[in-house]
Amino acid sequence: MKPPTLADIRRAAVLLKGVAHETPVLTSRQLNERSGARVFLKCENFQRVGAFKFRGAYTAIANLTRHHPSQPIVVLSSGNHAQGVALACQLHGREAHIVMPEPVNPLKRAAVLGYQGKVYTPANRDEADQLVEELVLKLNGHCIHAFNDPKVIAGQGTAALELLHTVKDLDVLLAPIGGGGLLSGTCIAAHGLNPALDIYACEPAGALDAIHSVRENRVVPQPNPQTIAEGLRTSIGDLTLVVLRKHLTGFFVIEEHEIVEAMQFVFERLKIIIEPSSAVALAPLLRREAALQGKQVGVIITGGNVDLTGFFQNLSQAPNQWGPE
Amino acid sequence: MKPPTLADIRRAAVLLKGVAHETPVLTSRQLNERSGARVFLKCENFQRVGAFKFRGAYTAIANLTRHHPSQPIVVLSSGNHAQGVALACQLHGREAHIVMPEPVNPLKRAAVLGYQGKVYTPANRDEADQLVEELVLKLNGHCIHAFNDPKVIAGQGTAALELLHTVKDLDVLLAPIGGGGLLSGTCIAAHGLNPALDIYACEPAGALDAIHSVRENRVVPQPNPQTIAEGLRTSIGDLTLVVLRKHLTGFFVIEEHEIVEAMQFVFERLKIIIEPSSAVALAPLLRREAALQGKQVGVIITGGNVDLTGFFQNLSQAPNQWGPE
Repeated sequence: MKPPTLADIRRAAVLLKGVAHETPVLTSRQLNERSGARVFLKCENFQRVGAFKFRGAYTAIANLTRHHPSQPIVVLSSGNHAQGVALACQLHGREAHIVMPEPVNPLKRAAVLGYQGKVYTPANRDEADQLVEELVLKLNGHCIHAFNDPKVIAGQGTAALELLHTVKDLDVLLAPIGGGGLLSGTCIAAHGLNPALDIYACEPAGALDAIHSVRENRVVPQPNPQTIAEGLRTSIGDLTLVVLRKHLTGFFVIEEHEIVEAMQFVFERLKIIIEPSSAVALAPLLRREAALQGKQVGVIITGGNVDLTGFFQNLSQAPNQWGPE
Repeated sequence: MKPPTLADIRRAAVLLKGVAHETPVLTSRQLNERSGARVFLKCENFQRVGAFKFRGAYTAIANLTRHHPSQPIVVLSSGNHAQGVALACQLHGREAHIVMPEPVNPLKRAAVLGYQGKVYTPANRDEADQLVEELVLKLNGHCIHAFNDPKVIAGQGTAALELLHTVKDLDVLLAPIGGGGLLSGTCIAAHGLNPALDIYACEPAGALDAIHSVRENRVVPQPNPQTIAEGLRTSIGDLTLVVLRKHLTGFFVIEEHEIVEAMQFVFERLKIIIEPSSAVALAPLLRREAALQGKQVGVIITGGNVDLTGFFQNLSQAPNQWGPE
């Protein structure tokens, strides 16, 4: 298995044209002032399924279609990859079998069901792995890994491709790191277009595996991640490790309170909804990292799937607290 | 006092160029499917101070500047008008005296203070009215009304002007109604460019005054408004009444639960933050009003100033509830 090339990412972009949204690039006077940088946000929170994951999932399935037009797809994911695959399968008229180990976020399960995906909820991760194997055998299914897959990486790289076409003179790119699929695609696309770009991985202090893996040049999993950034609890794979070692300038390690503060800054000032994983990539800007001062900085805002149920329950019950305008 | 003309709104647009944001017009596949219309959202939640009010406040103050370059400004507002005036005064190097009757939202007070406004918090509305009078006399101040002012109305009309320049073939415009400044400016701009446009006012069932005022052709205040849409608790004025009677196609009356549902739809699907007043203008689309079916519908999203403090307090304390992706 080899990483994709810039040409593969360009082919993915052609496949995604008119299917994925070409998401907007937002700027904010307040964010620029706060960070001491000029910041360009590639807003994948506005992507279909609310996250960049649709790009990779669709690309992988579109590449299968020619050879295996009706093979069912099987995935293990309780997050945005599940939704991305379910929608991509619906668009291709394929069966999606989504294995979501407990505890499952009911909103994410509902979203997968909304795209006609079949949902399985085994009790834990070991049972989930076994179930995926069984389903692949029984259904003659094809399993799409959430990040350790060249087609998935190529699809995720199209976000950076669009960003660099929109903003020509970026100095730095920031993205969060979970399994490393997004960041690998970002590295290949960005350095394919501009080898001088600095690219930093942003990793929660409570889920450090990529930083150790890259330094030791082997996958060093984090078996017990503790972070609000659910998309970043996973550990990187052997394919993404190769790409990241080759391309990354460095890492920023982000504390939990910084994640919440960055989310709050964006909700309150920029008026957009981002998930905790996206906030991880903004935190280095809010703490004014020296490497970013005075630079043109692109940030991949990975998604906007946040559970707001509690907020709206409170809102429905709120009294008329403040007087008239 | 006469209402502004389209020419006045165009002059306001010139004043605001490079000062106010030319806010984006967003579309959403999901909103179109849900509503049976093609919807274009003029996103004033991305405006400076987080609401359209900056347009009117800045326009009124910029028009004063030539003749009274250092006269202090006095306003009565506990909401977005207060913030708009405070920022506009800061940009013009003028003193802003903002009278905010209790109960005052601490976030809005903090925002005004951030723009160097002087804040007064009298115990109730009567004391506030008296204090405004006293300040005007003592400081030789100029009072800018939040909506019953031709310059303010002209400034608010620039949002619709931009929307109609971006989307040429709208059939219908929707906007919420509080004091009617935004809607009056919207009517004059929109019918100045296209007299055939249908324009509807969207009013909370718990704060109905405009619908009665327009029908009876006199200001019929609502002394005890009960709605989560704080920006819409105020009653219209004699100047806005004249404009609304002349231009409005009709009213949509919106229930409280519809306001919360529309907010939730937008937060969860469109991933942008809107305040309850904006949700009032989306509710007719979500309930698929017959007059909107198959139409090209523009909506003024008035602002995004929502108190999210409770949400972020809960988030900081949240355990790792769901498993890894």
